[in-house]
Amino acid sequence: MEKLVFQFSQNEADGHAKMKDLLGGKGAGLAEMCRIGVPVPPGFTISTQAYHVYQAEQGVGEVIQVPVRQSITWLSENLGKSFEGHGSPLLLSVRSGARVSMPGMMDTILNLGLNRTNVDRLAQETGNRRFALDSYRRFIQMYGDVVLGIDIDEFERLLERTRHGQGVVNDADLSESSLDRLVDQYLDLVIESTGNPFPEDPYEQLWGAIRAVFESWQNPRAQFYRKIHGYPDEWGTAVTVQSMVFGNLGDDSGTGVCFSRNPSDGVNQPYGEYLINAQGEDVVAGIRTPHPIAGDDAKSMERCMPETYSELCATMTRLETHFQDMQDIEFTIERGKLFILQTRNGKRTSHAALKIAVDMALEGLISKEVALKRVDPQSIAQLLASEFDPESKNRVVESGNYLGKGLNAGPGAATGMVVFNPEQAVLHAEQGRKVILVREETSPEDIAGMHAATGILTQRGGMTSHAAVVARGMGKPCVVGCSELRVEASTGTMHINNRLIRLGESISIDGSTGEIFLGEIQTQPSPLVSKMLQGRIAEGEVGFPFQLLMDWADEVRTIGIRTNADTPVDAKLARALGAEGIGLCRTEHMFFGEDRIQLVREMILVDGPARRKRVLDQLQPLQMNDFYEMFKEMNGLPVTIRLLDPPLHEFLPHTPAQIKTVAEGMGVDENALILRVHELSEANPMLGHRGCRLAVSFPEIYTMQVQAIIDAVVKARGEGFTVRAEIMIPLITTSAELAYLVEGYRPMLQRAGLEDIPIGTMIETPRAALTTDEICQVAQFFSFGTNDLTQCGFGLSRDDSGSFLPLYLEKNLYEADPFKTIDRKGIGKLVKMGIQAARALKPDFKVGVCGEHGGDPESVGFFVDAGVDYVSCSPYRVPVARLAAAQSQLVE
Amino acid sequence: MEKLVFQFSQNEADGHAKMKDLLGGKGAGLAEMCRIGVPVPPGFTISTQAYHVYQAEQGVGEVIQVPVRQSITWLSENLGKSFEGHGSPLLLSVRSGARVSMPGMMDTILNLGLNRTNVDRLAQETGNRRFALDSYRRFIQMYGDVVLGIDIDEFERLLERTRHGQGVVNDADLSESSLDRLVDQYLDLVIESTGNPFPEDPYEQLWGAIRAVFESWQNPRAQFYRKIHGYPDEWGTAVTVQSMVFGNLGDDSGTGVCFSRNPSDGVNQPYGEYLINAQGEDVVAGIRTPHPIAGDDAKSMERCMPETYSELCATMTRLETHFQDMQDIEFTIERGKLFILQTRNGKRTSHAALKIAVDMALEGLISKEVALKRVDPQSIAQLLASEFDPESKNRVVESGNYLGKGLNAGPGAATGMVVFNPEQAVLHAEQGRKVILVREETSPEDIAGMHAATGILTQRGGMTSHAAVVARGMGKPCVVGCSELRVEASTGTMHINNRLIRLGESISIDGSTGEIFLGEIQTQPSPLVSKMLQGRIAEGEVGFPFQLLMDWADEVRTIGIRTNADTPVDAKLARALGAEGIGLCRTEHMFFGEDRIQLVREMILVDGPARRKRVLDQLQPLQMNDFYEMFKEMNGLPVTIRLLDPPLHEFLPHTPAQIKTVAEGMGVDENALILRVHELSEANPMLGHRGCRLAVSFPEIYTMQVQAIIDAVVKARGEGFTVRAEIMIPLITTSAELAYLVEGYRPMLQRAGLEDIPIGTMIETPRAALTTDEICQVAQFFSFGTNDLTQCGFGLSRDDSGSFLPLYLEKNLYEADPFKTIDRKGIGKLVKMGIQAARALKPDFKVGVCGEHGGDPESVGFFVDAGVDYVSCSPYRVPVARLAAAQSQLVE
Repeated sequence: MEKLVFQFSQNEADGHAKMKDLLGGKGAGLAEMCRIGVPVPPGFTISTQAYHVYQAEQGVGEVIQVPVRQSITWLSENLGKSFEGHGSPLLLSVRSGARVSMPGMMDTILNLGLNRTNVDRLAQETGNRRFALDSYRRFIQMYGDVVLGIDIDEFERLLERTRHGQGVVNDADLSESSLDRLVDQYLDLVIESTGNPFPEDPYEQLWGAIRAVFESWQNPRAQFYRKIHGYPDEWGTAVTVQSMVFGNLGDDSGTGVCFSRNPSDGVNQPYGEYLINAQGEDVVAGIRTPHPIAGDDAKSMERCMPETYSELCATMTRLETHFQDMQDIEFTIERGKLFILQTRNGKRTSHAALKIAVDMALEGLISKEVALKRVDPQSIAQLLASEFDPESKNRVVESGNYLGKGLNAGPGAATGMVVFNPEQAVLHAEQGRKVILVREETSPEDIAGMHAATGILTQRGGMTSHAAVVARGMGKPCVVGCSELRVEASTGTMHINNRLIRLGESISIDGSTGEIFLGEIQTQPSPLVSKMLQGRIAEGEVGFPFQLLMDWADEVRTIGIRTNADTPVDAKLARALGAEGIGLCRTEHMFFGEDRIQLVREMILVDGPARRKRVLDQLQPLQMNDFYEMFKEMNGLPVTIRLLDPPLHEFLPHTPAQIKTVAEGMGVDENALILRVHELSEANPMLGHRGCRLAVSFPEIYTMQVQAIIDAVVKARGEGFTVRAEIMIPLITTSAELAYLVEGYRPMLQRAGLEDIPIGTMIETPRAALTTDEICQVAQFFSFGTNDLTQCGFGLSRDDSGSFLPLYLEKNLYEADPFKTIDRKGIGKLVKMGIQAARALKPDFKVGVCGEHGGDPESVGFFVDAGVDYVSCSPYRVPVARLAAAQSQLVE
Repeated sequence: MEKLVFQFSQNEADGHAKMKDLLGGKGAGLAEMCRIGVPVPPGFTISTQAYHVYQAEQGVGEVIQVPVRQSITWLSENLGKSFEGHGSPLLLSVRSGARVSMPGMMDTILNLGLNRTNVDRLAQETGNRRFALDSYRRFIQMYGDVVLGIDIDEFERLLERTRHGQGVVNDADLSESSLDRLVDQYLDLVIESTGNPFPEDPYEQLWGAIRAVFESWQNPRAQFYRKIHGYPDEWGTAVTVQSMVFGNLGDDSGTGVCFSRNPSDGVNQPYGEYLINAQGEDVVAGIRTPHPIAGDDAKSMERCMPETYSELCATMTRLETHFQDMQDIEFTIERGKLFILQTRNGKRTSHAALKIAVDMALEGLISKEVALKRVDPQSIAQLLASEFDPESKNRVVESGNYLGKGLNAGPGAATGMVVFNPEQAVLHAEQGRKVILVREETSPEDIAGMHAATGILTQRGGMTSHAAVVARGMGKPCVVGCSELRVEASTGTMHINNRLIRLGESISIDGSTGEIFLGEIQTQPSPLVSKMLQGRIAEGEVGFPFQLLMDWADEVRTIGIRTNADTPVDAKLARALGAEGIGLCRTEHMFFGEDRIQLVREMILVDGPARRKRVLDQLQPLQMNDFYEMFKEMNGLPVTIRLLDPPLHEFLPHTPAQIKTVAEGMGVDENALILRVHELSEANPMLGHRGCRLAVSFPEIYTMQVQAIIDAVVKARGEGFTVRAEIMIPLITTSAELAYLVEGYRPMLQRAGLEDIPIGTMIETPRAALTTDEICQVAQFFSFGTNDLTQCGFGLSRDDSGSFLPLYLEKNLYEADPFKTIDRKGIGKLVKMGIQAARALKPDFKVGVCGEHGGDPESVGFFVDAGVDYVSCSPYRVPVARLAAAQSQLVE
């Protein structure tokens, strides 16, 4: 039998940091800390292997019990404490621990070992009967809730009644005799609720606690968390059993959470919060607002416990140096002595992650490659996220609609309608509304609602509260601990600074500043983006670490990164963000301009090629100028222009006013026009008369566009610009179709002396992907349109999938949203087959990818593997793709 | 250099029947006839190889001219005739000849060699100057039109003026002096039109004629004909040059066309038409209505020329025995002597093809296998085509709307609106209307219109006229030579028996009887179908040959043939037509019944699973009974039931009356209902919330259907029926999706003791086809839904493709309509990959195909190759598929 239990104590341990899979993050961290001499209460970890034994045996059997009993004996001897008999009682904490941290998902039991006898031993040992009783009642409550399944509100009601009876507000003010009575009431409640007395035997308590930790792996909240983070069910959890230390033995005790660097902005200074005379869950649950560890605050640890603070700082440095990453540490001070309960790589904001990674590389603590791997590409998008437009914000402030301020727990600006529970959040978000989830405090049950919300605001809790940690993980703007806020979820209202706000009203929150506003505020690019638009960033300026990381990424990656841009403004932005060209310039977007939509409508509605040509002649100089501006902006870089793609009826007038205008412009009857618009409508426009099919039916349109491109190239080159235009034909299904069109445009290019301009095609229908061996004989390059390829491949319209796709993801019927991350097994196979078939004939054939997947990190990794030459994505996703591409090439 | 010219003369020839690729059908046939001693005017064939030389050299150069001159010399010596000098002039016919006959597509020149000198020699030789002049003017006219490109109307105008001047109606009545003047006018016309005199040199004439034949291969009509028949452009045409014989030397001369068996009904008797004192084109063009060769008609050849008739019959028998197929023969009688000008396998109606093939096999002339290959599976559908409902027809007749009768040139009944030109036919057909194309006579320019029409009616022409031959080839009902009809295309009217009918009015024609009616007449199944529904057909009864051929087909084929049927009536029909089970029973069609659509609408519109369940409880017994009836009808055969597939909104009420009824039934507000209907509408329903996606969102629906199947199986089995039900889940994209659903239904089947009922899936999305290795682990069978697979694979909605697909086919951008014939390169590749991946894991995995392609002969051949176990098609296509499957297995 493999070893199932791993012991650890000061300076020695069976496990070590690399054993996260077996011991969980916590267990491995504790073992490693012991090895390097960090003060840790001794204990042992029951491995994930034991979880699988538990699963197989459906219970905590002898295979697990035997080594645990041995370890308890060892622990008793080590500490001189015991479950029974004389002297100090052996009290334990029991915690879950998966290989990655899942905050709030798993259940924890503290003070295990207490019973009617041991509570007296504890009182005797500590000389503090009040403390012993408080610990006992906490233990019964926690165990009753987590292990015995008793509604926690039942305990809270008794506690509340006791507080009320004694006339106090805080639990800490409860008298010994009140607690004595409360314990009796708790024990009675257990009998009433379960039919059995509360277990007296510490071993029985322990088996129950271990079982509860194992079971909690499969609870719905944990499953949901794994699903949204993509963690497999098979991992399982370890259980760490550790001797208790007490932060609630008096004012020389305390407990806290700290980070070795600031998790919000990444600055290299200790950061954290602690509470005096409290147990750890008081900090995490956010029920009492804690004090900072560092700084001049009168209640800071640095001021109140300067020696312990120094020891903590030294320990943090030792841990960070050892683990080569910023650490998130739980500690307890028991009568002035520091204990580290847990350390793990700290969660951090995107800003912090980037700064810490770059700083550590510059400090020589980690390599550039490790720094690149430390930053989640998804989080990059967050750095570039919009913030409030100052003017719009000013107007709101000047209108007296500044509401108040909380803690800036998750950076970014958000605006949306107020909802007060997760169900409302999901409901309205599904209907396309932006919502701000406002809660007294959040709990794991809220996760689906937090996921659906644009931003999160809570009344209580600190920077490490559930709401704050989860929101940062999700990259959502979040403001917590707003003490001026009073949420009344039941009535659908909130009060803040004497203002009443009802369900459905709009508010705006700034997760970077903690500010809260009534009404909607417009957003704008982040300062980082503004900075990059101005050119290279100097050292010390905002964005310098970002720029450095991007430079490092570019040194590593080999795949090209282009952008999807239809306007010079977007092109300029994308270029500033590192785009190496335009991979998709959609010409139809240019058609919606006010000066041309009327012409476009006439073009579609006129009868016959001759009249259509006359309208197109008017459109041509406008399109020419569009292209000319793009070429200038992208001087020296490739610009791939896709000819007209969407169904024509998308451009058509629909409102009576539009129809009237067009009818007048064309000199036709309004009713005739309505009829024609109706004729052009399609049952399934996505599969209809669009893309190159338009060019087969109405050759004049593409001919005009090609001529406009030619004229623009000639003009821009004439002015000294280096133009690298590429013409791309959409929705090809057969090589014959492409050849027919290319035969028309190639001579036009030749006549203009522009033989260097290649004509390529989108590969966006499955049939095209299946016949690239033929199409590559005609096309000069491919660009996989993975949006349409996914739609056709799945038979799934993105526009219509909202009514069932969420359910599919929830039930794991799809591994991921196929429009977000490329489906490797199906659509990815088409892409790979398509590339291989073309390259088998033409080894250097150029292949790009445009579409949303080009900016999705996981998909970028796939495209690198598939041998794609470049991906093209929206401007803000360009840095994401740059980093993702580098990371995918750093994978061993 | 390869031999380019192949000579033939009585009893000897360079070529033979197997050389169709090189000599064309005509050239090979003439060579073969010479070899077996049939009386044929001597000549030679310029091969299709020469066509390619012509194409390469862009002209008739020395490589072709040299062997042609040698052959002319040989011919002169053989016949004692010459291009110049004394004695008889050498006159030639020049004809096109591709490897298959393309009637009317290619141009023909007769009387080549005539000039001012030779016309006198001909007059002298025949002693008939009138005939010589008539031949000369015909030659100039034909050559002027075909080779020199002069509008034929210019000649016709001169001819008409001459007839008018002389006061005669028929060309045969023109006097010698009139013809003399006419020839001069013709020659002047040539100079005026072309700037050059008519070529006097017979060689110059010959080079021009050869060039014209070669060029005609590429004319638009020929291209169109090849496209609709799927013949490749690369074949090219041969040119056959043959010495002239004359059917217009007087009343002991004549010309005709005959078939060795009746091409209309297949009866084994000579059948044909001839004209006394006429050249061949008079028969083919349908300008004079000819007389029958056989029978008691006073002008029949059998009565007028009994000896020649006997010789013709003997020759026909010799040819049919030699070629082992029914022959279509052109002959000329020159002063009592019979010449066979051409023989080829005769075109025939579907009825005739089938009867001739079966008869010949029974006669021992051909094998059963050859008989099977002789019948075009597409034509089988025609045999089963509907005919007029007698009551509906009676009503029309009793209303006095019988209009008249023509020749029954193409069997089948058709009803539709009258159009008078091919443009109108195409226009209205594209708008979904059934049209009857009514013409004075048809010409090759009419082909597109004939293709678009439901039926064809002509005023002039016989059973072998252009209209008749082409219509039969296309399988269109056709009535020709209706002498009571007067068509005035220019005014958009026709008169028939003093009734005026305008463009757009409806008429009905019966191509089997030749009858014409005013108004629409309902159609019904053919007697063959009625007969088969009564059980096995006895020998000698209608349909016996059909039954025999089908039996032979079943002996050969290995692939199964099932049917798509949703009702017991369809199931019974399909079973009578040979279906071996139901491959696709669409449960949604059952939902449209009057007694349930209201319930279905409520099911969709109610809120929440509980209320939906209540409505479904009402639907369940109805569905149960549907299935029960199907099972009884298909006793012993498999019945594959597809669970609900289409988007729910297809069932919804749309008219105000429907909405009112449903709102009342549900007790909800009409406006709320309208809103809900609107909410359910989708941008691309084909890619939307349908198929198994409905079952994920609304599990109650499929659960109800599965329970209804279970109950129906139990009931039918309880009554002693052998039920082989199969449950099929549509629109699967991932194995997880299927597993999720199957997990729900498998226990239901187990509880009912129905473990034998397999649950399979449609493979109709490209992603499903790409991941069959996973899906086959969950499904118990596959059925490829090639309709949706084609739609998704091409990104092409069948509903919307009408606006551009015809253009795609015209421009050869698609090889065929992908909804009609499976696209082998793309969609076929998906099917093959899908089968291979599943069978690699499970070698015996059952795979079917349902969808239109299952009834398309070419596609069936593909599915046999791909290893499909069975195809499923609509009932009337079942015999088509049976034959096609047998044929595909007979290919060497």
